[in-house]
Amino acid sequence: MSEKKIPYKIYLEEQEMPTAWYNLRADMKNKPAPLLNPGTHQPMTAEELGGVFCEELVKQELDNDTAYFDIPEDIRNFYKMYRPSPLVRAYCLEEKLKTPAKIYYKFEGNNTSGSHKLNSAIAQAYYAKKQGLKGVTTETGAGQWGTALSMACSYLGLDCKVYMVKCSYEQKPFRREVMRTYGASVTPSPSMETEVGKKILAEHPGTTGSLGCAISEAVEKAVTNEGYRYVLGSVLNQVLLHQSVIGLETKTALDKYGIKPDVIIGCAGGGSNLGGLIAPFMGEKLRGEADYRFIAVEPASCPSLTRGTYAYDFCDTGMVCPLAKMYTLGSDFIPSANHAGGLRYHGMSSILSQLYDDGLMEAISVKQTDVFEAAEYFARVEGILPAPESSHAIRAAIDEAVKCRETGEEKTILFGLTGTGYFDMVAYEKFHDGQMDDYIPTDEELAKYREMLPKID
Amino acid sequence: MSEKKIPYKIYLEEQEMPTAWYNLRADMKNKPAPLLNPGTHQPMTAEELGGVFCEELVKQELDNDTAYFDIPEDIRNFYKMYRPSPLVRAYCLEEKLKTPAKIYYKFEGNNTSGSHKLNSAIAQAYYAKKQGLKGVTTETGAGQWGTALSMACSYLGLDCKVYMVKCSYEQKPFRREVMRTYGASVTPSPSMETEVGKKILAEHPGTTGSLGCAISEAVEKAVTNEGYRYVLGSVLNQVLLHQSVIGLETKTALDKYGIKPDVIIGCAGGGSNLGGLIAPFMGEKLRGEADYRFIAVEPASCPSLTRGTYAYDFCDTGMVCPLAKMYTLGSDFIPSANHAGGLRYHGMSSILSQLYDDGLMEAISVKQTDVFEAAEYFARVEGILPAPESSHAIRAAIDEAVKCRETGEEKTILFGLTGTGYFDMVAYEKFHDGQMDDYIPTDEELAKYREMLPKID
Repeated sequence: MSEKKIPYKIYLEEQEMPTAWYNLRADMKNKPAPLLNPGTHQPMTAEELGGVFCEELVKQELDNDTAYFDIPEDIRNFYKMYRPSPLVRAYCLEEKLKTPAKIYYKFEGNNTSGSHKLNSAIAQAYYAKKQGLKGVTTETGAGQWGTALSMACSYLGLDCKVYMVKCSYEQKPFRREVMRTYGASVTPSPSMETEVGKKILAEHPGTTGSLGCAISEAVEKAVTNEGYRYVLGSVLNQVLLHQSVIGLETKTALDKYGIKPDVIIGCAGGGSNLGGLIAPFMGEKLRGEADYRFIAVEPASCPSLTRGTYAYDFCDTGMVCPLAKMYTLGSDFIPSANHAGGLRYHGMSSILSQLYDDGLMEAISVKQTDVFEAAEYFARVEGILPAPESSHAIRAAIDEAVKCRETGEEKTILFGLTGTGYFDMVAYEKFHDGQMDDYIPTDEELAKYREMLPKID
Repeated sequence: MSEKKIPYKIYLEEQEMPTAWYNLRADMKNKPAPLLNPGTHQPMTAEELGGVFCEELVKQELDNDTAYFDIPEDIRNFYKMYRPSPLVRAYCLEEKLKTPAKIYYKFEGNNTSGSHKLNSAIAQAYYAKKQGLKGVTTETGAGQWGTALSMACSYLGLDCKVYMVKCSYEQKPFRREVMRTYGASVTPSPSMETEVGKKILAEHPGTTGSLGCAISEAVEKAVTNEGYRYVLGSVLNQVLLHQSVIGLETKTALDKYGIKPDVIIGCAGGGSNLGGLIAPFMGEKLRGEADYRFIAVEPASCPSLTRGTYAYDFCDTGMVCPLAKMYTLGSDFIPSANHAGGLRYHGMSSILSQLYDDGLMEAISVKQTDVFEAAEYFARVEGILPAPESSHAIRAAIDEAVKCRETGEEKTILFGLTGTGYFDMVAYEKFHDGQMDDYIPTDEELAKYREMLPKID
């Protein structure tokens, strides 16, 4: 521990910001399993992927060896508009908890998309623009990714078509309006605009949609429209690559003050934030240079790591995407309608799944009322109203800090505060009004979806 | 101009943050006129004010001579949770506008209250706590001030009662919910909780309220409840004192890089942001050390400086508050219901009114569709979705920069970006849907309210 006085917020200088993304796969002994063609069950080739993703992103997706990818200057300049993000020393939280632990969080919410999603959105939009495309399509659930992509596309003059999970579209008109401010077209999914949407609506009339459905629609729209490609805000290797900017900044800031975290905590839905935050630290661990505990925190209502199966599965409901090997609950799994806390995806990044399977990372699940309790506590003490997603990590960090109070250990806890909850007040209201339950899927329910996993040799 | 490369965002180090607030009145030759007792028309004494405000704040309110007030350490620590705020070089906006002007903005929106209001909220709550009070009462319109005060009170363990203008209460349930997250009680105003509320409801059944009404209710609640005082988010001298932290940080940041602004622009409702931003620069001007142009920007639908009268008037509708000498439209004036852009107060800070009357500051008014056009433009180019209030300053800054493009002048423009618009999406939606008009009060209408001004010798 350094003798330097640590400020409440550590901001890097502009010239200290990362100039290259770090590709964690380069240091993994067991590489993440490749994407498979859903028809042939053979690894997807660059050519096949090129119909869905733009060329540079295909390269990034498939490259398990190159440790660093230069961040193009235009993207670095865009980053300078809202980065570096602060690494915050949670002095107030420590004091309130009366813990000897030292708590830090990397706060990614100070931009209009409200989360870390912008880090990958600008990268994906940039490569699409560079390839001369007209636009991109995507899906969004809570709306953070859709907003981020809208911002990036607006900046670069690209068309942006967002399929928004219907229940979110209806419950979050303000998110929709932000995307509209950035010139995106937003369609509630499932819609009658795509074949897969029509099929899903015919089979499940009245469905309020799911991320898996919306992905299927966005992919179809991209592959059937000249000059469009599909982009995704999480799960993919390329996304974790871009999000490594979170971890790289964090590590530089900690190194400046000689701080070494003992435990690193992140919420985990598709894995984009967690994968980005832990990247350089996990790299050190993989290279045997340092050791850290890593904890993935997921909702008890959508427990892909803690109760899922490590297997090949579809990334989407319509089964138009490649197959990915991941911890999954099955592509038809949809969390309880009462689940308000985000992180609703049925699967998990192949990189994180492999690390978890190799025992390099822990995972826990938390109940949503416990998450909102932590969220409100944190808001009052640290002054930031957190996104429900981020609050999973807050819950786990508080629990760790309380353990330290009991044991007297002066651990250094680092967690990722991925975003703000300004568009999640309906969920907070439910919590305040005692209308939030803690539904947890039964073993029978999970078994039903497990049975439906595709059979791959 | 310095040769140093200016970063996109200038953050001060923690130790560079101001340790004292600057009291602009100390350098004013013509001091702002004193508050008057509404009954006797004599200047309010410290004792009289002490029934409404807490002691330290009364001192600050009445002191026209002390140039600097030390910021207590507890407040400085709270500031460190969300300050220093960034001074942003608007490179992207400059490029998009093709202007030779250099544009800077001080961005106060990166905290959960969404605006600069927190700077004074924590100060006022701190002094209330120090005096051993139980709680404070206040009013809120758009909700930024109420949220800020809720955050400050929650941090200090004070009770917080907010009277929220009824139409905002109904149209902004999420703002209400944020205040609830911070433990405040929020009552739609006018209410049946106060005598003045009952009276207003009897006279105007079905009224959707106004800031002036809500102030009357909050003041009554404070003076009739043991252990409570009233606090106000704008207009008062004490508020401008606390908000000087904005200008002090800005000046330190500019000085570090040897930058001298030619024109300083701020939106003006009650004057808290503008007064805070310009304070140290105006101080230099008053002392003859430097010269700057200052521009107050107000809505054309509520034009207190540009079309109001400089006279003593009531601060509130219920006429329970002291009289203040200010540019005013009359305490019964309420802007058109279609006005969505904030800055709805009928009067203006006595300090700013005096400076304007002395010709030390300019004022302009802008139409709300022009404001929202600038807001959307800015959001797309600079990546921050601005509050409608702040967008008045954006409009004026863009217009100045465009003039520079035409004349070729390389002016340095500084403006205050007071907050974010995340809770204003209904207004943005109106704008997108073409449902926003530009109602401007007629001369006859303004004359009617002018006739109703109190007659003071």
